[in-house]
Amino acid sequence: MKDHIVISRATIDRLPVYFRCLRHIQEEGAEIISSEDLGRRVGVTPEQIRKDLASFGEFGKKGVGYYVRDLIRNIGEILGLHRNWNIAIAGVGHLGWALANYRNFISLGFNLKALFDVDPMKIGQIVNGVEVFSCEKIPQIVDEYDIHIAIITVPASNAQSIANVLVECGVKGIWNFAPIRLKVPDDVRLVSEDLSVGLSSISYYLSREYKL
Amino acid sequence: MKDHIVISRATIDRLPVYFRCLRHIQEEGAEIISSEDLGRRVGVTPEQIRKDLASFGEFGKKGVGYYVRDLIRNIGEILGLHRNWNIAIAGVGHLGWALANYRNFISLGFNLKALFDVDPMKIGQIVNGVEVFSCEKIPQIVDEYDIHIAIITVPASNAQSIANVLVECGVKGIWNFAPIRLKVPDDVRLVSEDLSVGLSSISYYLSREYKL
Repeated sequence: MKDHIVISRATIDRLPVYFRCLRHIQEEGAEIISSEDLGRRVGVTPEQIRKDLASFGEFGKKGVGYYVRDLIRNIGEILGLHRNWNIAIAGVGHLGWALANYRNFISLGFNLKALFDVDPMKIGQIVNGVEVFSCEKIPQIVDEYDIHIAIITVPASNAQSIANVLVECGVKGIWNFAPIRLKVPDDVRLVSEDLSVGLSSISYYLSREYKL
Repeated sequence: MKDHIVISRATIDRLPVYFRCLRHIQEEGAEIISSEDLGRRVGVTPEQIRKDLASFGEFGKKGVGYYVRDLIRNIGEILGLHRNWNIAIAGVGHLGWALANYRNFISLGFNLKALFDVDPMKIGQIVNGVEVFSCEKIPQIVDEYDIHIAIITVPASNAQSIANVLVECGVKGIWNFAPIRLKVPDDVRLVSEDLSVGLSSISYYLSREYKL
């Protein structure tokens, strides 16, 4: 894999999509995939796919295509999925609970180590084998379990204060589901999830295809 | 707005991201934004943004930038958010429940009309003002409430059969959260959500920045 190269954010954001699609393709039993077929499935031009993957190294074979298993392993390494990150979820409401049971995280090598909530009724509960701790214990637990990434699913009103605590404790990655724009230091990687994006893209296509 | 033009899937998928970011920018009080500033915030090059938006029409003013409010309205129309789609959620587990309470859907003009589940304990319950109906009532309710888009949050084992029923009833858009690759007719717009994509991109950046 090439190193010390500048890669556009847009390319980085497409990699997990390729990774997800390639895993589907592998489940279907295919061993080789062309940039044309992969492009059709993820909605990206073959040129874009070749460009994206070429920026990391040589994964394809001219006239043959990409070896699915090799490409999955390579993209997995590029995405750092082999690092087995320890993650925690702050906010055990319905979304937090659903994410705690989301099997794809484990299949990607993420280790859910702890859950945090302020509700005394939830503290001490075990969700999918993981304990719910009081938010007051965040410093201790983050240190003890070496938490690298935190998922924030608390209400918008508490999201920034929880993020501040997590960052102070050394968490370097924040995945925010609260509908609010968080502020974090430059050395913390923040990704904000807007669940309405998927719905918006469906809306786009339907509004073109159906003049209801 | 231009019509009858071919737009790449990649562009379509970036529009909701622009839309989301522009709404943040509007909340912050800005009336004008340059493609450079917008690009920095969404992680896309200014050239890409100008190219994406130019494919729909002229929203910017050379040397000035884009008028935030106009651009939000225009992208909203492009995405068909003004169509006020009626949506339903099949599967009132934790994720379905969380989505039923997700305020961004309403703010985008989506109308949640019905929830479906097989659990007798859940049928008849009201979640965020919306009733949970038996899955057996899908044909009747989809017709009665003119449901255009369905969100599938049932277990993977039931996802395809529920999708089949919804499609038979005339639902034209499926947003699938079940970790399975669904098959739907070509005239149905399917978007599959893999919640691990956001986590993967955080993993990428951290694995580059921190040699733990």
